[in-house]
Amino acid sequence: MALDLTADVVDLTAALVDLPSESLHEQQIADDVEAALRALPHLSVVRDGHSIVARTDLGHADRVVIAGHLDTVPVNGNLPSRLDGDVLHGLGTCDMKGGVAVALKLAASVPEPTRDVTYVFYEAEEIAAVHNGLGRLAREHPEWLAGDFAILMEPSRAGVEAGCQGTMRVDISTRGERAHTARAWMGSNAIHALSPVLATLDAYVSREVEIDGLTYREGLNAVAISGGVSGNVVPDAATLTVNFRFAPDRSEEQALAFLHETFAGFDLVVTDSAPGAMPGLSRPAAAAFVEAVGAEVGPKFGWTDVAKFTLLGVPAVNYGPGDPIFAHKADEQVPVADLRSVEDRLRTWLTS
Amino acid sequence: MALDLTADVVDLTAALVDLPSESLHEQQIADDVEAALRALPHLSVVRDGHSIVARTDLGHADRVVIAGHLDTVPVNGNLPSRLDGDVLHGLGTCDMKGGVAVALKLAASVPEPTRDVTYVFYEAEEIAAVHNGLGRLAREHPEWLAGDFAILMEPSRAGVEAGCQGTMRVDISTRGERAHTARAWMGSNAIHALSPVLATLDAYVSREVEIDGLTYREGLNAVAISGGVSGNVVPDAATLTVNFRFAPDRSEEQALAFLHETFAGFDLVVTDSAPGAMPGLSRPAAAAFVEAVGAEVGPKFGWTDVAKFTLLGVPAVNYGPGDPIFAHKADEQVPVADLRSVEDRLRTWLTS
Repeated sequence: MALDLTADVVDLTAALVDLPSESLHEQQIADDVEAALRALPHLSVVRDGHSIVARTDLGHADRVVIAGHLDTVPVNGNLPSRLDGDVLHGLGTCDMKGGVAVALKLAASVPEPTRDVTYVFYEAEEIAAVHNGLGRLAREHPEWLAGDFAILMEPSRAGVEAGCQGTMRVDISTRGERAHTARAWMGSNAIHALSPVLATLDAYVSREVEIDGLTYREGLNAVAISGGVSGNVVPDAATLTVNFRFAPDRSEEQALAFLHETFAGFDLVVTDSAPGAMPGLSRPAAAAFVEAVGAEVGPKFGWTDVAKFTLLGVPAVNYGPGDPIFAHKADEQVPVADLRSVEDRLRTWLTS
Repeated sequence: MALDLTADVVDLTAALVDLPSESLHEQQIADDVEAALRALPHLSVVRDGHSIVARTDLGHADRVVIAGHLDTVPVNGNLPSRLDGDVLHGLGTCDMKGGVAVALKLAASVPEPTRDVTYVFYEAEEIAAVHNGLGRLAREHPEWLAGDFAILMEPSRAGVEAGCQGTMRVDISTRGERAHTARAWMGSNAIHALSPVLATLDAYVSREVEIDGLTYREGLNAVAISGGVSGNVVPDAATLTVNFRFAPDRSEEQALAFLHETFAGFDLVVTDSAPGAMPGLSRPAAAAFVEAVGAEVGPKFGWTDVAKFTLLGVPAVNYGPGDPIFAHKADEQVPVADLRSVEDRLRTWLTS
């Protein structure tokens, strides 16, 4: 069924949530979003893979980029969407189909904004950075993302979140020697050899750091573990994957150095890495937006693609409906009030 | 190609090794063994699943059961077989196609043994006990296994190994709460929660116990570990599988009690369990065999199906070619001298 961009933002969010779009499975949602945007005569639309860019070309001096990703993490018993009083529940309501719904509504209903707008809807944000649609656009079509300011509609409780933490994933692998478990002393158990790594993770205390008046809190987590040959065999290999979320005062190199120091003596292989972004609240475009929408400003913990805009030289903030603590959780949800607040404030900013 | 039971025992072992037969994939080897045995007019042959029983019926007062399993653990870069000087290398050479080859040679070349013989070749010994072909025969056709004494041709360095250790597998699962790794403090990491379990395993010191003059050494090993949702999610579940090899002075109940005590506070689910067998060297049939073959006697560490014969009331020992330290290892091997020694001694015993 075609997406109705004239629907209420809550209904539109629900419709998007009910289009399953786990990372790498965005074909249908991208097709539907593209079709809805192509039906709007005031927008010119281009597509690359499952990422879509729609823009006004009114000749304004300023251009703002409004962006959101179409994919979600895997379903966790939280589909279909369900409206319960003032809260919409379901996978992606918070991260970030609520924000996508607001952007689509604005794209359809603000044909003559007072600044030119580039809407970006992209794929594969929730998995390894190599797949990220916005990253590909930045490499292959950087002109599509050009602008004076960017708003990434990641959940921020309808407030402005500035900067973002970096993220790095490393595989920590141990080697042992296989043997029959009945004569285990002839072998060496690679799973047991991960014991000091798990002990370090279990004892980890996160660092907190204040930047531009905002406090960032880091995180160090095992996100996958595997090992084993068969039920009778001392395993000769095991692998633990660790995700490090680091405050934007560390570079990727510094983050890796921290991991080497923390897991000294173990082999680390970096499988994914993305830099953080400093808050940059002192830049004029960011400051002007913050003042115009009148929202509170806080730090962004999650890694978001504001870092990509930062690298392109475009000042960027996160501003979207939903509390990010519900992102990736079974009880993911977005308050209706957040959807309306973000839609109303952005509409006012784009039309005044 | 048909198995040639008149071939030299080394060639026959190599031919069996080169028939891949990972557990649950014994169709071909069982077909070939059955066909070779059915060609022998002095044997009556029956089959159940991929397990084959062939027997002489000469009316002797005594009957001996000679048994071996046809399956192996998964291949580990150790196929095909390779004869290097006096040692045959390859998957299953030791555990236990060397023993199977000896038994097949005797079945073919000793048409009139001085005691009746029941040869048993069975499936699925290397995986969970529920699949074990000998166990199924013991439940469904116990009369096929009747005898006064049983020889299990598991590798024992051409010596007699008495008794066997028990084996138990338990899954230790932890629960946590999912959250985005960028806000890990909102969740609870189930992989980190396995840290005390791994620490216990890493620090484990095996118990040794002496029974009937034989010293048994226990083992406690992680054989599998898994957990993880996606690279951005604090995992809410993780599972570690532990294999406990316990000396035959512990019952299965006592073994489980030990595990509960060792991993106090964690949930254990038993997924596989098989009792040990006391050495039983004082029983006349066992003592007579030991004296006749003139081999040294040691304890059996690995769990073997002697325990099944013990439960059926049939005295049983392990006696086969190959050093069990090579079982399940990449450099699995059997000395040619062991193959010849076990074949010669058993042939002498069966014909004198």
